[in-house]
Amino acid sequence: MARIVMKFGGTSVADIARIHNVARHVKREVDAGHEVAVVVSAMAGKTNELVGWAREMPKACGANSPFFDAREYDAIVASGEQVTSGLLAIALQSIGVDARSWQGWQIPIRTDGAHGAARILEIDGGEIVRRMGTGQVAVVTGFQGLAPDNRLATLGRGGSDTSAVAVAAALKADRCDIYTDVDGVYTTDPRIEPKARRLSRISFEEMLELASQGAKVLQVRSVELAMVHGVRTFVRSSFEDPDAPGMGDFDNPPGTLICDEDEIVEQQVVTGIAYAKDEAQISLRRLADRPGVSAGIFGPLAEANINVDMIVQNVSEDGSKTDMTFTVPTGDLEKAVSVLEKAKDSVGFDAIQSEAGLVKVSVIGIGMRSHAGVAATAFKALAEKGINIRAITTSEIKISILIDGPYAELAVRTLHSVYGLDKQ
Amino acid sequence: MARIVMKFGGTSVADIARIHNVARHVKREVDAGHEVAVVVSAMAGKTNELVGWAREMPKACGANSPFFDAREYDAIVASGEQVTSGLLAIALQSIGVDARSWQGWQIPIRTDGAHGAARILEIDGGEIVRRMGTGQVAVVTGFQGLAPDNRLATLGRGGSDTSAVAVAAALKADRCDIYTDVDGVYTTDPRIEPKARRLSRISFEEMLELASQGAKVLQVRSVELAMVHGVRTFVRSSFEDPDAPGMGDFDNPPGTLICDEDEIVEQQVVTGIAYAKDEAQISLRRLADRPGVSAGIFGPLAEANINVDMIVQNVSEDGSKTDMTFTVPTGDLEKAVSVLEKAKDSVGFDAIQSEAGLVKVSVIGIGMRSHAGVAATAFKALAEKGINIRAITTSEIKISILIDGPYAELAVRTLHSVYGLDKQ
Repeated sequence: MARIVMKFGGTSVADIARIHNVARHVKREVDAGHEVAVVVSAMAGKTNELVGWAREMPKACGANSPFFDAREYDAIVASGEQVTSGLLAIALQSIGVDARSWQGWQIPIRTDGAHGAARILEIDGGEIVRRMGTGQVAVVTGFQGLAPDNRLATLGRGGSDTSAVAVAAALKADRCDIYTDVDGVYTTDPRIEPKARRLSRISFEEMLELASQGAKVLQVRSVELAMVHGVRTFVRSSFEDPDAPGMGDFDNPPGTLICDEDEIVEQQVVTGIAYAKDEAQISLRRLADRPGVSAGIFGPLAEANINVDMIVQNVSEDGSKTDMTFTVPTGDLEKAVSVLEKAKDSVGFDAIQSEAGLVKVSVIGIGMRSHAGVAATAFKALAEKGINIRAITTSEIKISILIDGPYAELAVRTLHSVYGLDKQ
Repeated sequence: MARIVMKFGGTSVADIARIHNVARHVKREVDAGHEVAVVVSAMAGKTNELVGWAREMPKACGANSPFFDAREYDAIVASGEQVTSGLLAIALQSIGVDARSWQGWQIPIRTDGAHGAARILEIDGGEIVRRMGTGQVAVVTGFQGLAPDNRLATLGRGGSDTSAVAVAAALKADRCDIYTDVDGVYTTDPRIEPKARRLSRISFEEMLELASQGAKVLQVRSVELAMVHGVRTFVRSSFEDPDAPGMGDFDNPPGTLICDEDEIVEQQVVTGIAYAKDEAQISLRRLADRPGVSAGIFGPLAEANINVDMIVQNVSEDGSKTDMTFTVPTGDLEKAVSVLEKAKDSVGFDAIQSEAGLVKVSVIGIGMRSHAGVAATAFKALAEKGINIRAITTSEIKISILIDGPYAELAVRTLHSVYGLDKQ
């Protein structure tokens, strides 16, 4: 017997029939003797509808500013999960499973006061644990909690994954199962490389890099939280038949376990290849090489809400002038250039060069720490295919390479193959 | 300066544009210097959608029983008003009015534990009153509150009127303005009698009879509550231009004031004519005239959830057998007859006669108390038109007459005219 938190996203609870299907997944675990809490998102499309109304309202009222009260936004948008949790509780009861819905404020899931993008501070799981002991399933609204002002707060888009991990931590659950529309985490995007394999295990650190690098399986914040609290998180599909063979196998269900690296016996040097499209590169030429110059560049960009990703700066030859290159999302390129033009004189550089439509390909693997030559292998493989490398950044467990857009698929497949990821 | 509660129903908040219009009504009162709290329903259609999902779920899950947990139903359905209150708060802020939404559980509006059909027990209006003093408008979710189990409770359909009156009582408001899709209470249904006039005032007692007798303007419970707490309630249209002449006239806005009869200086003998269609008559012939016989009839009908309306029983000639007639909704007739057939032997009667498709026409007026001959006038006027009277019941301020369905419109017009209601 174990204690499991099961999380279902919007497409998994999109209508009455799918909610019934979710109830069957839950019943399978309850029948196996486990204690279960469920975290649900809003029905697919509902959150967008609610967000749309909130955004349209100021304009419909003739307001000059499109801004609105984030506390009201939260009250509106949080209603979506409220509906799903109640419907799933009814579905569970209808198939003979004792269940009740819990809204974030009822538990309570306490958040900070950053309405619209709140962080979970504390969850009082006592009553839920007590009821799980009697066999009752708790169906918890994801994505939301109670702010210090006694009003609803939402965690920002995709926050239900984070809710699930936080609930799992608070309930000291043995595992947090994230049911989604894919059946696990792959060595790379199977739409690009059909030979991509599902990983049976991946470490928190690797998943964090994969998630940040464009793999859309899990929200980055939820992986961070799982790592901090050591919540073993399992990514699996909600669209499979709940009673198919192996689905109820507690130790080895179909999917990918995200866990501490100690749990991964046979560590690969490279675990996966990620990519992020629509990157744009900005190079500042003959930049004054003096203290404070980076702040002069990235301060104004941050104020303009532009996310800067890769940053490459070489040591200047004579200690006076240097070149700096960094990337921003292609959609922000125009704005970024305009911000930099304004800062040109105060910062001090000769020219701005930019290029849009680039791709960042990343090689990720915890084994890199102890293996030399991983980067060299990548560079050599790409060179053999005639792919030009524009910039490189590395971390302890990741190598990111900026290349021209048209080579994205070729680069992903090349790297996937060169590290042997297409072999069992 | 006054304190006003303004209530807007589902059609008044059906979309973004209408919510903007509601905000303009509110701004008009705020600009006039009044303290304002607003009570809102769910957007038109939303409650039906949510109720539909809750009802479909057990069947979709293959359950044998269509029943579901009323506490979950409440959590699901209460989300509708949550959305509207947040959107209206944003709309008000967008046109420069300080506002915040309040969900029933935040105030709290405490109810009893009858989930799905709860009654309001207590409202703590302290914080709202304090904020109204600073000029902030409270936008309150109608139709719901917090049950003793710390879960949401809804008041049953149409409960937002009741919420509004209860909030007005708790805030000691000078008036509760119910904005709806009609512009007041009429002497009778204008679709039947074009000469129907809007009443400027009507007493609580009369409105209660009108509301129970089929006038759909206000929920019966809300009128009861208004009467008990002496809440002056104003029925007016939300579809008029918020800034049309006279709309902001506090003492005499366009609409109908429901108030204590002391406030009605020129009392009419008859205030209005109501009607209820689709009544069915059941007559039990040669019923044993002994104690307990009524309980033997109406007990089983109540258990079958059938509402019995008019009940007529004559004194029997010899004290042994009598006839009894009563009405039920036509939709319940078949079920009622079947229930009575089963009780035939234990109760003791010879035969059941029934007839569907009848109409109950009611003459309502507080002046009846002190005026003789009101009933006689009605009977004479109907007789002159050749309308047969099937049954009569009376109260202190009401005469109800059961007639054949096809004569409904003629009877309403005849009575409306004979009491001079079509004259200014």
